[in-house]
This record gives sequence, structure tokens and C-alpha cells, in this order.
Amino acid sequence: MNEFELIYSYFRDISPKRSDVLLGIGDDAALLRVEPNHTLVVSTDSMVSGVHFLSQWPPADIAWRAVMTAVSDLAAMGATPCWMTLALTLPEVDCEWLADFSRGISTAISATEMALIGGDTTKGPLNIGVTVFGQVPFQQEIKRSGARSGDIIFVSGYLGAAALALKNLKNNAIPEPDNTKIFSHLLHPYPRLDWIPLLRRYASAVIDISDGLSADLNHLCVSSQVGARLEQEAIPLHPLLKKYAVAEAVDIALFGGDDYELCFTVPATQVQDFLAAVSLANLHCFQVGTIIDGAGIQIIDEQKNSKTLEPRGYQHFN
Amino acid sequence: MNEFELIYSYFRDISPKRSDVLLGIGDDAALLRVEPNHTLVVSTDSMVSGVHFLSQWPPADIAWRAVMTAVSDLAAMGATPCWMTLALTLPEVDCEWLADFSRGISTAISATEMALIGGDTTKGPLNIGVTVFGQVPFQQEIKRSGARSGDIIFVSGYLGAAALALKNLKNNAIPEPDNTKIFSHLLHPYPRLDWIPLLRRYASAVIDISDGLSADLNHLCVSSQVGARLEQEAIPLHPLLKKYAVAEAVDIALFGGDDYELCFTVPATQVQDFLAAVSLANLHCFQVGTIIDGAGIQIIDEQKNSKTLEPRGYQHFN
Repeated sequence: MNEFELIYSYFRDISPKRSDVLLGIGDDAALLRVEPNHTLVVSTDSMVSGVHFLSQWPPADIAWRAVMTAVSDLAAMGATPCWMTLALTLPEVDCEWLADFSRGISTAISATEMALIGGDTTKGPLNIGVTVFGQVPFQQEIKRSGARSGDIIFVSGYLGAAALALKNLKNNAIPEPDNTKIFSHLLHPYPRLDWIPLLRRYASAVIDISDGLSADLNHLCVSSQVGARLEQEAIPLHPLLKKYAVAEAVDIALFGGDDYELCFTVPATQVQDFLAAVSLANLHCFQVGTIIDGAGIQIIDEQKNSKTLEPRGYQHFN
Repeated sequence: MNEFELIYSYFRDISPKRSDVLLGIGDDAALLRVEPNHTLVVSTDSMVSGVHFLSQWPPADIAWRAVMTAVSDLAAMGATPCWMTLALTLPEVDCEWLADFSRGISTAISATEMALIGGDTTKGPLNIGVTVFGQVPFQQEIKRSGARSGDIIFVSGYLGAAALALKNLKNNAIPEPDNTKIFSHLLHPYPRLDWIPLLRRYASAVIDISDGLSADLNHLCVSSQVGARLEQEAIPLHPLLKKYAVAEAVDIALFGGDDYELCFTVPATQVQDFLAAVSLANLHCFQVGTIIDGAGIQIIDEQKNSKTLEPRGYQHFN
């Protein structure tokens, strides 16, 4: 066993125990039991330094972010997370880095109750490959493609904080303690697993906002073969966005990604029941627009003027 | 959509269709149906240039090898392959390279009847992340840990050809056409999926030989808490090994990896039935030794002398 295989000792015992894992790390492959009458949901991501994170970030935050941005894709399908594999390529064996990184993985998989079921460690340029697994009862899966004309568009929380933090990496214009606060939105996203039960019941389509509301709502519309009309005034701007970037606040919220809030649609006939359920669940969401026939996204500004939104997202660090 | 997201167009339509894929590439995650009364089997690998392959190899071969070495892990659990995800990190968009690489992926997933269900493409140093999924009926899963004292040890085919090819990369001593022949063992491994039905029925433990018979049989023994006795004369040396590396042939077969044959154990009481079934299935295997109490691997040479085998494997290109 070489030193890179030994790396796995950092991850061997951090996994929450789950009874559906018949065999975890240590054999040729993992053996897993999917719950009867459930659909398996799988998403895979690779994270590269300078694209998805900066190498100077705390390793535990890099790890948390790698796990949670992948888990956000499960939430967007209405799936409860259950397992994860980690393929880690590292330029060198740095014990201090590894201890902190594995602590971040541990915290994230514990928070989401996922078992770490396998992995691979290799020598090479830093690359973090995460595959996450979730399950959802038959017929309760939610796709991007289910939105229909007339459906109401919601967003699960404030937008723009992570993009403001990215912006501030360059111009460093935000004083403490707001700087730390805003930066935590970028480093420490929380996938909206709390929305899963309500989405399964009411949502016609869901997407997670990783590239920006404009780009991701456009993905949803393209998949559903519909268009959308957004009310500019209804877009939930993060309070710190209004404090530090008034002039650009709407643009940052529309085109800045990395918030990992969910954007979803609910049929108009169900909205009243849905909002009652939201209130009962102690959640809060923002009604931002309506699905319409056609294609593309129209945005209605404060003067009731309509313009077509460019579906571009942020290029992270490029 | 940036150019790296567009890369996925190379892979979008190459996947075999499967009815158990409810939703493949294109949403936040894939939706999959696991067969009732089957265990899900998952293995993940990342392949790095200079460690698992050389960048000057034909892209289609790099792709084939990346898929098939991962699939070999499924065979070692008795699992039939069904799905795959591909996380591809590339330094640049090289259309010619991508076309050839996707052709290699296509050939491999077609040969193994796996659907490509998801992926991710990112800019960065070349890294190929493959996660493969298989299924096996309940109770027919085979682990490394099931070998018991008295079980007979088998190998599914000739060993050493791939390691000889690796060796020849350095000293280039083998003339054509044997050079091409031997090299194809390294570039184009065939995972032994043909053995799955028999292994499910008869094997007490299985491992695939990626690091070398010595190292991998040792993994099996450690997992099973047993030792092994190998008959040196019984080790199936590849014919070209005997032709070009007589003096080192046994060492290359023992310590050279990358053949992706299977090493497995069968309880002594079942061996007769097993061998009859092997013959009926038109397969061929080699009986190489016996599982014993204790730990470590003893090898019995032609003079009936016993020595302890060092469980080391090859370091590929280091």
C-alpha cells in the first residue's frame, strides 16, 4: 500500500452508520440497499482549484462546499441524500491539510446523514470528485421539465450574497463583521433539504440556483419548453446586497450564482394550499414570477417596462 | 453555457438506452430504477495522466481503459454493470481529442451495456473520474472477506501480459507484431463479466487483479482473515511472458498488475461441481493454490520449497 492509498485512513471512520450500507469502503465496490418503491437519484461533480474554490481557502470549507453543492442537486430532484463517494486527487500528502479536509467532509456528511461508501485517492493536480446518491418515493421525483404555462415561480431564499462575496474577493470593499458574514455564504452553503417534503407534494419543476437565477430559471424553462415572466421588485435581494451594492443589487441577484437556493414552480391552482403548508412548516419563500407560453425570460421593472433577460451566469474566478 | 459545458455534447447521445434510466444526462441529477430484490453495487475511480495512463496514448484507449478497469470492480462483486457517470477535467477543449475519447467511452459502455447517466466537465489538469453502478440479486453478492481455510484459489486467465507491456514501455525490447499484441493487454483490458454467473453461484470470495496476484490475493486474505498457499508452477504465465521474460516471468505474473483477471476462491466441497459448470460455460480457469489458516502468502516453488511472498504490487509509471 503506497502513501496515497494510506490517505484513505483519513476517511475510513468518519462516515455515519446506515443500515442500507451492506458494505462500505474497503472492498472492490460498495454494496447498497435501495428502499423498495424508491427511485435512486445520482449526481456527480468534480471541483477544481481556481474554478470552484481557491486553494488558499480553509480545507474544511473546500470539503464542505464540495459535498453541499452536490447535495443541492439531490434537493432539486426532491431526493433525500443517503450516500456519497469521494475521488480525491492530491499533489502531495499534506497531513495537516488532509486532517482539516476530512473534518470538513465529516461535518458535511453528518449534517446530511450520508454514509461515505467509497473513494479513490491518487497523486496528481488537486481535484475533488464527489458523487452523491439520494432516494425519492416513486412518482414523487421532480424534474426541470415539469413547469407549465400559468405555474407560479418561487425562490426559496435571499439571492446574491455568495456572488457579492465573490465580487468582494477582488475589491475587498466590505468591512468586518459583514465581510465574514457574506463570505460564509460562499464558503458554507446550505442545500435546501428542508424544502424536500413540500416540493415533492407541490412543485411541478425545480432547479437549484448555482449559476444565477437568470441562467438556472432559463435551464428550467428550456427543459419545460416554456418561458417565464419575472417581477424585478419581487426578487429577494440579500440585505447585505442592498447595503453594499445598491446599484448592482438586482444584477448580482440575477446573474450571480453559488447561493444554492432553489427555484421552483407550483401550479396556480395549488398555490393557496402550498403557501398554507409553507407557513405550517415554518419555511419562507418568495413569489417571483409566472411561467408563460413561449421561450426566454421577460423581466418587468419598477416602471412596468418589460425586457428580455440574458440567461448568462457568473464565471466564478475567471 | 461556456465551452466546457458544451463538451458534454460529445457524450450526450452515445449512451445505450436502458428502461431503468428514468432520466439521464441533462437535469440536476439522474433518476434510476434499481431492480426489486437486487443490491446496488458502486465503485468510483479517478484516473490521472502519468499514474494510470500516459497522455500520448490514443484517447479512445485511455477512455476504454478508464471505463473497463472500473467495471472490473463490479465483476469482482458479482454485479452486472448498468450505469456510469463521467467527471472529466480537461486543460483545453481539443475537439479531435474529445471526439476520439468519446468514441472510446461509447465503445466501452456499449460493450458492457451501461447507460451514461451523468457527468461533469471542468477546466483543469486532465483527470478522468468514473463511477460505475451494477446490480446483483440479493444474497448473491460476493465480498473479499468470504474465503475460508481449505477453499481452493483460482485465477480466471493468464497473468503478466500487461506488466510486460509496461516494462517494455521503458526498454522497448519486444519486436512487432508481439509488441502490439502485448500492448493491447495494457491499453485494452477486458473485465471478466463472463465469469459473473459462475462466481455468484460458487465463489466464496473474489478480487480483481489490478495490482498483481501477490498484492491482490493478500488483500483478499487480509479481508478474510486467512492465509494462502500458492503453487508457483500453477501460476498461469502469459505465453509471451515465457517468450520474452523467462527469468522474470513468475515475478512479473506475481507482482505485475493491470491484467484485470479475477482471483477467486471456491469451497473445496464445491470444486467438482464448479469445474463441471466452468467446462459447460466454455470458460477456463487455473487452480493456483489453497486458502490456509493464519496470515500471509506462502509460495511453493518447483523444488517444493516454501517461502513467504511479499505482497507488493507494481507502481505503474513512477
